[in-house]
Amino acid sequence: MKPFMNPDFLLSTETARYLYHEYAAPTPILDYHCHIDPADIANDVRFDNLTQLWLGGDHYKWRYMRSCGVEEKYITGDASDKEKFLKWAEVLGYAIGNPLYHWSHLELQRYFGITTPLNRNTAEEIWEAANAKLQESDMSARGIIKQSGVTLLCTTDDPIDSLEYHRAIAGDSSFDVKVLPAFRPDNAMNIEKESYLFYITELEHVCQCKITTFSDLKEALRKRMDHFDANGCVLADHGLDFLIYEPGDDAEIERIFAARLRGEMPDFTDANRFHTAFLLFVHREYVKRNWTSQLHFGCKRDNNTQMFEQIGANTGFDCIRNNTPSGAIADLLNALACKDALPRTILYSLDPNDNAAIGTIIGCFQDSSAVSKIQHGSAWWFNDHLTGMQSHLANLASLGHLAGFVGMLTDSRSFLSYTRHEYFRRILCEYIGGLVENGEFPADRDTLGEIVKNISYYNAVRYFRFPLS
Amino acid sequence: MKPFMNPDFLLSTETARYLYHEYAAPTPILDYHCHIDPADIANDVRFDNLTQLWLGGDHYKWRYMRSCGVEEKYITGDASDKEKFLKWAEVLGYAIGNPLYHWSHLELQRYFGITTPLNRNTAEEIWEAANAKLQESDMSARGIIKQSGVTLLCTTDDPIDSLEYHRAIAGDSSFDVKVLPAFRPDNAMNIEKESYLFYITELEHVCQCKITTFSDLKEALRKRMDHFDANGCVLADHGLDFLIYEPGDDAEIERIFAARLRGEMPDFTDANRFHTAFLLFVHREYVKRNWTSQLHFGCKRDNNTQMFEQIGANTGFDCIRNNTPSGAIADLLNALACKDALPRTILYSLDPNDNAAIGTIIGCFQDSSAVSKIQHGSAWWFNDHLTGMQSHLANLASLGHLAGFVGMLTDSRSFLSYTRHEYFRRILCEYIGGLVENGEFPADRDTLGEIVKNISYYNAVRYFRFPLS
Amino acid sequence: MKPFMNPDFLLSTETARYLYHEYAAPTPILDYHCHIDPADIANDVRFDNLTQLWLGGDHYKWRYMRSCGVEEKYITGDASDKEKFLKWAEVLGYAIGNPLYHWSHLELQRYFGITTPLNRNTAEEIWEAANAKLQESDMSARGIIKQSGVTLLCTTDDPIDSLEYHRAIAGDSSFDVKVLPAFRPDNAMNIEKESYLFYITELEHVCQCKITTFSDLKEALRKRMDHFDANGCVLADHGLDFLIYEPGDDAEIERIFAARLRGEMPDFTDANRFHTAFLLFVHREYVKRNWTSQLHFGCKRDNNTQMFEQIGANTGFDCIRNNTPSGAIADLLNALACKDALPRTILYSLDPNDNAAIGTIIGCFQDSSAVSKIQHGSAWWFNDHLTGMQSHLANLASLGHLAGFVGMLTDSRSFLSYTRHEYFRRILCEYIGGLVENGEFPADRDTLGEIVKNISYYNAVRYFRFPLS
Repeated sequence: MKPFMNPDFLLSTETARYLYHEYAAPTPILDYHCHIDPADIANDVRFDNLTQLWLGGDHYKWRYMRSCGVEEKYITGDASDKEKFLKWAEVLGYAIGNPLYHWSHLELQRYFGITTPLNRNTAEEIWEAANAKLQESDMSARGIIKQSGVTLLCTTDDPIDSLEYHRAIAGDSSFDVKVLPAFRPDNAMNIEKESYLFYITELEHVCQCKITTFSDLKEALRKRMDHFDANGCVLADHGLDFLIYEPGDDAEIERIFAARLRGEMPDFTDANRFHTAFLLFVHREYVKRNWTSQLHFGCKRDNNTQMFEQIGANTGFDCIRNNTPSGAIADLLNALACKDALPRTILYSLDPNDNAAIGTIIGCFQDSSAVSKIQHGSAWWFNDHLTGMQSHLANLASLGHLAGFVGMLTDSRSFLSYTRHEYFRRILCEYIGGLVENGEFPADRDTLGEIVKNISYYNAVRYFRFPLS
Repeated sequence: MKPFMNPDFLLSTETARYLYHEYAAPTPILDYHCHIDPADIANDVRFDNLTQLWLGGDHYKWRYMRSCGVEEKYITGDASDKEKFLKWAEVLGYAIGNPLYHWSHLELQRYFGITTPLNRNTAEEIWEAANAKLQESDMSARGIIKQSGVTLLCTTDDPIDSLEYHRAIAGDSSFDVKVLPAFRPDNAMNIEKESYLFYITELEHVCQCKITTFSDLKEALRKRMDHFDANGCVLADHGLDFLIYEPGDDAEIERIFAARLRGEMPDFTDANRFHTAFLLFVHREYVKRNWTSQLHFGCKRDNNTQMFEQIGANTGFDCIRNNTPSGAIADLLNALACKDALPRTILYSLDPNDNAAIGTIIGCFQDSSAVSKIQHGSAWWFNDHLTGMQSHLANLASLGHLAGFVGMLTDSRSFLSYTRHEYFRRILCEYIGGLVENGEFPADRDTLGEIVKNISYYNAVRYFRFPLS
Repeated sequence: MKPFMNPDFLLSTETARYLYHEYAAPTPILDYHCHIDPADIANDVRFDNLTQLWLGGDHYKWRYMRSCGVEEKYITGDASDKEKFLKWAEVLGYAIGNPLYHWSHLELQRYFGITTPLNRNTAEEIWEAANAKLQESDMSARGIIKQSGVTLLCTTDDPIDSLEYHRAIAGDSSFDVKVLPAFRPDNAMNIEKESYLFYITELEHVCQCKITTFSDLKEALRKRMDHFDANGCVLADHGLDFLIYEPGDDAEIERIFAARLRGEMPDFTDANRFHTAFLLFVHREYVKRNWTSQLHFGCKRDNNTQMFEQIGANTGFDCIRNNTPSGAIADLLNALACKDALPRTILYSLDPNDNAAIGTIIGCFQDSSAVSKIQHGSAWWFNDHLTGMQSHLANLASLGHLAGFVGMLTDSRSFLSYTRHEYFRRILCEYIGGLVENGEFPADRDTLGEIVKNISYYNAVRYFRFPLS
């Protein structure tokens, strides 16, 4: 029996162990996709207690607590921080097989030096020890980022964002981690949302322009892309309910947009037409700017109306949307390619059944402008657990070029989530080590080490064209 | 090499072995979903030979025999019981990797003390030995149930059922296993079936009322629920081809029902509207009565018209129906929740591709009224094999709260199927043991034993509110 | 650690090893589905270098090279054979986990006696050694087939094919491997293709008849089937984008066909009606001739318009088409069964998510006319890697009769691909050996050996009714 989460956690073979310890572990972290608030880095915020860090905004944990029958009061309600922590500790003690168990204990081990398993019995002791540790100087936002070995991270930002905090961080020579914005124009695309007109007004205000046509909108977005570009952005991101390809001509799109400005909601087909035209436009611009695009899809959000009305979005009530037609994904990429609008692109589906189809779709649009120009993004959200990551890696290796993969991201709102890179690297080394130990690939340390380091870090540096040496 | 199906069958690690032998094996069985005829228990039927027990109604076995090219005569035809058994034994001898191989040998071992593998060469000898054993006093229906360690079982019953056999069993102090009815109103819901009007007439007869409106139908069903309730029912079950959410207002539903009474078949959309309204109604009633609901979906039945015309339904000609939109499942649960009509509910899909989506959907509707109020039901029917159960457990653990799972059911028409609980528990202990041995969870015997016993038995006792101490 | 691809490659248990070495390895090869040009066998072609054999038409390799960022010049362009080989060697050196890595090294080992891993550093040396080996007398097309242990292979042929090369080979007593045609009438079925009328004209020419009605087309195809039958054909094959069942009456089909002859394209529904009627017709004919049918579906072809316009079809730009409704598959098979038009049939889906549904559908249409009359075909194309084959075998075993499986095919355009049978047999023996070592099946060498030999070869001989002793 292997000891509980010791330094060889998830590494069952000798090859896996040396790949992890010699190559993966010492490599820096590049977190090209997260949801950290750049203001918190600019202000170098500190945390009073573990509840603030762990339970303040982590809807993965909230959802797990609800599954255990915990009252909402102790999840998002008005219980005290300590009460919430105690409830969390109690249910975590039974979370066998859940990635939250691994993540939480990796975080306790790496950032707090706590190796005791957290449960009902150890909750008090760990609460005290962790909160004491949080008082130490290196446990501020910046301190955590630095000690995690991060060289660069990308936040997720709306086109109307001023990026003032990014500039503040860039201008502060005391902090040498690059913090770049990523361009996420969902609000400008989601014409079917109630809040769309309000958003357009905000965009007009930021751009100092009038937006009365789709052409105007495109012009406004170009200005914002220039602004992002000037602040170091090299990366866009789209959160899409589903991927669809529904072409429409310019006149149709202008008609749909004009109707929306008059307050008329588009029907389903018109909304899809508008989304398609929007994606074609912005991707053309990404190509011009040499940006990379990320397409996240397969999510159905806010499924519990009662809870949505009580506590709003991003609170743990989303699910996988299945049945995305692979043909639509291929047709959309093809339309982009035909219009010189296919930048380096990463596809992420929330539905693991899409893995195989994506593995074959990306292979249809590769070219020599980049190694693995079209990528199958890391196992995401509901898939970023051990079996989900294993499936993604085996799928990518079987159908494509694993060695060209740009690797892991945290997708997180938390400063402690960098251990997910460690989690991923352990799984990666276990997978590669397993192939070698099984006689499927030569035990050539140099090649294996190169592959592991590239997937851990260097592929991302090169692929995204980040300003890192 | 491990010996063939010895006491450590499927238990490859020390942790798995002690979890199974010390915690899982001694725990009683609660079979909350089966298709045993309660009359057979009331009458304490006996069996002349193994063919009656094994091949009388088990369409899993029939289907396997057809796959081996066996003539229908030896399956459902007029061959003798012994001829059928010999054919079965011959093909079973090649059933490597099929769960029938494991189930049949578990049954031979546990109930007949036979450890010889069954095949062409051993068929005669096992036929004699098993049939002799069947003459022993403890091999009646009740004897088998008792020796299996069952404390409670739920049959599956139509609303029009008198439940006389349940009352007879409850009133017989010589048999202390609880046998409760479960309410399965498919016939009252399936408005698109040819036999619907005939069923409504039967229901009128049983209820001593006229059913000329949907309101009347609801009133009739309320009466029958009261009747079931009075006979100890705490559980409903729905066998649905697919899950869909198609809302309609009261007038529409009454229109559809009235048309059907006039002999007009609803179109596809109207049938879905009626099903949706029906589910909303009965689930509201389940909430009032504190019952649990089970939703089984993803099946396409009676695919072979020629065989259906020869030998009818439930004879081995069903298949998985795929492509259920996860959005419809979520929307239906949300509609129930919004109308105060979401009881404790277990979702079972026959399509294993739905596992991940279901794992995320159930997480959207949990609350503090029960631990894991919405459950992802045990790997069902075409999925109740080793890999199917492993996938289900890993999925549930990765996405939710495995420790709150209500565990296994037989779904069987046979009195020998309680060994499927053993099969499940072995797989469960192997899974949990594997996580521990791999360093993913602490080797804390108390916690692990508690989890194993709860999933094996005690979670179900608490979840369904069964009258067991 | 197991040595790299040694004789025990992929065989991790003692049972797996003896099953492979004693039973699987010595068994001949029957390749019932490939895309080799029979003219190359008739002419016993030779190859100047490894690039001709490996990179001449293998779009699996092309696609992988593109994923690595290799310029098209070195893939399908005008670079020299040696330049192409060097690029291929370079990227192959990083292809960890990809089946191309295994296949390429199996081919180097078995046909060239080269055990050195191919990569950037060894490319020159292997280029020289392999090309020298290609000059040896037994390295012609026929020599490679003979040394591979092939007793019979089926090519894939259009109805208009003269089959002259098949006759030439059959008439040449110096070559005793049977080379049979397989009937693939996709061009006669695909009414929605631009080239359809041109094809009909060709068919008229070959048949010396006029085709002005669907009845005429059927009559022409009957003649061609007779021609194929006279040349030893026992097998048909259909490459379908998707499986659908859309019935139409004779008048409708004649209307659709007549319109197409006038140059009018059918709409989507009419195309599906025509396909359905076509399949019903040809399958009725297959039954009469005692042929077997293969239905390949789940592919979306030529997704990259720019590359299609440059280099045409079958160049590595296809992907998995998902979301095939299992109901349509079942309905089509049922329609065939109802019209006495269901021959022995093998279903292959490119979407691995269909595995479970197919496993249950085939079980609905078995009968005593053959062992496993309806088969779930071997993991195909994007699935013929280690995990894809493992999934297929476990699925088939769990849901059906693995021991009746007709086993592997190459589906290849290359003469070196017979090692894929070895690859499959190793995975098969590892799977079966694993079950035995895990105590799931008795360690009875005779039964296990019989199962392995049958799946490797003898099931196919019997199932297809091939003229082999």
